[in-house]
Amino acid sequence: MIEACDGSGRVRRPDQVAVEYPLTVHLNDTELATLLCTPEHLEDLVVGFLHGEGLIVGLDDLAELGIAAAAGAAMVSLRRPISLADRLYARRVVATGCGQGGGDFYKALDALQIKPLSQPGDGGRHGRGLAKEAILTAARDLQTRSGLFRETGGVHTAVLCASTGAPLVGRDDIGRHNAVDKVVGSLLREPLAEAGDGPSFLMVTGRISSDIVLKAARAGLAVIASRSAPTSLAVDLAVRLNLALVGFVRGRRMNIYTSVERIG
Amino acid sequence: MIEACDGSGRVRRPDQVAVEYPLTVHLNDTELATLLCTPEHLEDLVVGFLHGEGLIVGLDDLAELGIAAAAGAAMVSLRRPISLADRLYARRVVATGCGQGGGDFYKALDALQIKPLSQPGDGGRHGRGLAKEAILTAARDLQTRSGLFRETGGVHTAVLCASTGAPLVGRDDIGRHNAVDKVVGSLLREPLAEAGDGPSFLMVTGRISSDIVLKAARAGLAVIASRSAPTSLAVDLAVRLNLALVGFVRGRRMNIYTSVERIG
Repeated sequence: MIEACDGSGRVRRPDQVAVEYPLTVHLNDTELATLLCTPEHLEDLVVGFLHGEGLIVGLDDLAELGIAAAAGAAMVSLRRPISLADRLYARRVVATGCGQGGGDFYKALDALQIKPLSQPGDGGRHGRGLAKEAILTAARDLQTRSGLFRETGGVHTAVLCASTGAPLVGRDDIGRHNAVDKVVGSLLREPLAEAGDGPSFLMVTGRISSDIVLKAARAGLAVIASRSAPTSLAVDLAVRLNLALVGFVRGRRMNIYTSVERIG
Repeated sequence: MIEACDGSGRVRRPDQVAVEYPLTVHLNDTELATLLCTPEHLEDLVVGFLHGEGLIVGLDDLAELGIAAAAGAAMVSLRRPISLADRLYARRVVATGCGQGGGDFYKALDALQIKPLSQPGDGGRHGRGLAKEAILTAARDLQTRSGLFRETGGVHTAVLCASTGAPLVGRDDIGRHNAVDKVVGSLLREPLAEAGDGPSFLMVTGRISSDIVLKAARAGLAVIASRSAPTSLAVDLAVRLNLALVGFVRGRRMNIYTSVERIG
């Protein structure tokens, strides 16, 4: 029960808040991280998180994944032993490198083993332009989509959209990063049979920060769009990785920050 | 330069995005964490972060704090040696404990050494009621305050307000947590000479999640208000810690989730 106040008085009524759930990921019996998340699609979340951190390339790298929901624990074992020291080193480099010059920046990306996406015109899978209309459609859908958001006002959404703007996979979470991890995890766990002809893209509700760009680039997604703004580091990373950032998608408007040639 | 599109065409124009800056905190020569932040008030941020993590109680615990801005590094040394293992243990308990029953929950709070705030009526410093009008005033000010937000659309603000709703200390950051850390850090570095008669409170732009509640409780702040929603874990924690959560402060409306008796 909450007390709802307005100009004229107070009333006690039931209310619903977004659930925040702590999920601790154990990797090969070592505690890796605790994700504060919305407790839905937890397998997607864990797989996407491991992928975004560069710990797995695909589902084949996983020997086992178990979720103990009541204990708030995810138990993961990998087929190949990985060095946690290596992983921490990669994080350290990217974290401290990005604030410095271009040379360190490239070294940081090398350490993360993220390759730039193919340029439009190179003939790669990201070569074709995405219609502006598709992004406007996706933004409209996003606003009507999230019932959880309307009810509780505290949830982010990420949606993988077809080149028409139609939603392919959508996930909600109280965390911006978690929503993206869940979408990527879902794609790894159940690859889409048919994503349509053109390039797919990622539509998100929250701010586009550097870590969102890294997650998308690892997943091979060449366009990220949002109603919100990108950050400076996100723009820098997107330029280096050939990824298009589209912000402030509102009504008929949008701002294209990078890789303008990807938006047709 | 960005391409700004609307219904009728495209135009290239300069644009400003929020700066995202990686600051790596080194504690006694051990790398502690990298904060992705807005590069302003970095000393406040580091002090508030250390306080929020339970690593320092006050400024006296700090032997040295140096910021190497170009390298993106903060070098901290403490007067007393602390065990990183202890700290990690505390984090682990809270992370995994909160998802379980009440007993583990209390143990988790014990591990974090956060005491419940004094109840209204106990005669403590948090005993007096806060006027609803003060929260409405603070919410209005918050909307007009943040020039950075209006320009870039990607920044959170936290403001410590007097019992009248007047701003005492305000800080902006691309991260919700960082903005709160900066306010708390500022209070530790330069205690306010005069905060007025009644209870002060924290007004924030973003969602109120569990970690925001923990930071506020550690800083002895008994009321958090926001235009956005609290999460379930935030509400649970606020109940145990006797902290009032006020959400959806918009126009003349607000929802009081916990410690209703603190709002007069």
